[in-house]
Amino acid sequence: MNDGQIPLGPGAEFETVRAMLSRWSGLAPGVGDDAALLDVPAGQRLVVSTDTSVENVHFKRAWLTPQEIAYRAAAAALSDLAAMGATPLGMVIALTLTEEWRAQIVLLADGFAAASRELGAPIVGGDLTAGSELSIGVTVLGAVKHALTRSGARAGDALWVTGTLGGPLLALRALENGTVLVPSQRGRFAHPIPRMREAQWLVAHGATSGIDCSDGVAADASHLAAASGAKIVLELDRLPLVAGATSEDAASSGEEYELIVTAPATLDRAAFEREFGLPITAIGQVEAVEIPAPGLETKNRGQRVPLPRGHSHFSG
Amino acid sequence: MNDGQIPLGPGAEFETVRAMLSRWSGLAPGVGDDAALLDVPAGQRLVVSTDTSVENVHFKRAWLTPQEIAYRAAAAALSDLAAMGATPLGMVIALTLTEEWRAQIVLLADGFAAASRELGAPIVGGDLTAGSELSIGVTVLGAVKHALTRSGARAGDALWVTGTLGGPLLALRALENGTVLVPSQRGRFAHPIPRMREAQWLVAHGATSGIDCSDGVAADASHLAAASGAKIVLELDRLPLVAGATSEDAASSGEEYELIVTAPATLDRAAFEREFGLPITAIGQVEAVEIPAPGLETKNRGQRVPLPRGHSHFSG
Repeated sequence: MNDGQIPLGPGAEFETVRAMLSRWSGLAPGVGDDAALLDVPAGQRLVVSTDTSVENVHFKRAWLTPQEIAYRAAAAALSDLAAMGATPLGMVIALTLTEEWRAQIVLLADGFAAASRELGAPIVGGDLTAGSELSIGVTVLGAVKHALTRSGARAGDALWVTGTLGGPLLALRALENGTVLVPSQRGRFAHPIPRMREAQWLVAHGATSGIDCSDGVAADASHLAAASGAKIVLELDRLPLVAGATSEDAASSGEEYELIVTAPATLDRAAFEREFGLPITAIGQVEAVEIPAPGLETKNRGQRVPLPRGHSHFSG
Repeated sequence: MNDGQIPLGPGAEFETVRAMLSRWSGLAPGVGDDAALLDVPAGQRLVVSTDTSVENVHFKRAWLTPQEIAYRAAAAALSDLAAMGATPLGMVIALTLTEEWRAQIVLLADGFAAASRELGAPIVGGDLTAGSELSIGVTVLGAVKHALTRSGARAGDALWVTGTLGGPLLALRALENGTVLVPSQRGRFAHPIPRMREAQWLVAHGATSGIDCSDGVAADASHLAAASGAKIVLELDRLPLVAGATSEDAASSGEEYELIVTAPATLDRAAFEREFGLPITAIGQVEAVEIPAPGLETKNRGQRVPLPRGHSHFSG
């Protein structure tokens, strides 16, 4: 089925679905059955991830336009596909709407459409329900030949990060203080771009493990260390900073959606930067585990320093 | 990764994940990476559906145990796979928890485990967030060779339904009145069993379209009519009833999770009932469209009657 001309039954739920489909011409093939049918290319594995964004937990209404809220929820989910080196097959959107948000459905639909179009992920299904707060659950489906997982870091690898860090934390701080965002802060906060092609390039160039930076680089690097049973040394003074951020800001800034990978120290950094117009920086290394417990160690100018706190929606 | 010994990083979110994994030994392979990796059998298509259950919209805390709430949310989602004739590959669970519900996480985990075990769907991933109400989003993944869709109903087919109808509506009515549920009411309400194998049997025996009964048989049959561009006549006096239900109850009772299919009138009903110990009943037929608009017509003892109202969370 296509072009929003989906034969759906009666009811308010379907009116809302129709309003969304009218904005999704061509981006939402097949919506309308009990389930969506997709094909995984032969020889590839299916990659699945889900991510939920809840109003007043992950964002505040005053900070972002409805389009940005929807785009950002989809981009956050798609970033988990990027982190695996996968190519999107589609996404499924579960929306819980208050009455007030239901009146804004077309604006939310436009944000999902932007993510679908820009990031190459058709909208293949969804679910709509009423509730007391806006919640956007996005499940993403992708395909991959050789997946980048968290568990392959090897002693001798360098730790790399794409882009520059700290923007979302500075943006949050400014929003909470009621000050105006500068573009370097607002850009990656309101319109993060999952590093899909970058991750595929890194897999092709020897990356051994990877994760997207959603909890803060210190917390996420510790996930790589734990999953790989390795010791990872993160050098805070080498973190690539946006203007105005300290290395502590950069280490704990969440929702960056940059890639953190372990890869050979000889990685052709210049080739990456030419290909994507994006910096990639060595920010530490993977060391042999000398003691039983693997984990993350943080250094600043060569001296061990305490682990910066990660970003947690529960403890925040 | 297996047996709940998943290397996850620090933080309250991970403590909650660990508490769930400790109850999911063997049922949750691979949880812990950015995304799950699955394989769709060669020659089969991927089937994906999502369903969200929100407290006070889809259920009330006082009506069900936490285990039942979790089981039911998963079963509702898996029923959409059943309706397509698919076999489950796995499910992804997105939980939004209040502080109070977070304290009950082990009971919810046990309900998901029961659904996973009984319905053959491994838990392959998820997401946890805080929020002001309990919300359970379950995205299910399955595989199918020949999918049963809503759009294949043909003039001359009979309309069939599995099981008996009305139990969930009687259960809801009793709960709202504070009266005690009898087992025939409580059973399918608290512990619905998606008709997975039954749907596969029906596909193999000539079913042309199908849907699971989630909005009420009248509303769901009208979805089949709309998607198939056909006229479907539903005969209310032929609906199979649980004890105490009227045909109007049965027509509008939602969340039944029985199958509604169009299939030849010659379907071997006795063979189905022998195989599954479950009745299957012809409740109408698909007619040639004589006027431009397809749709559903309801009859009672051969006379046209108004369409019974479906079940809608928005209008309810």
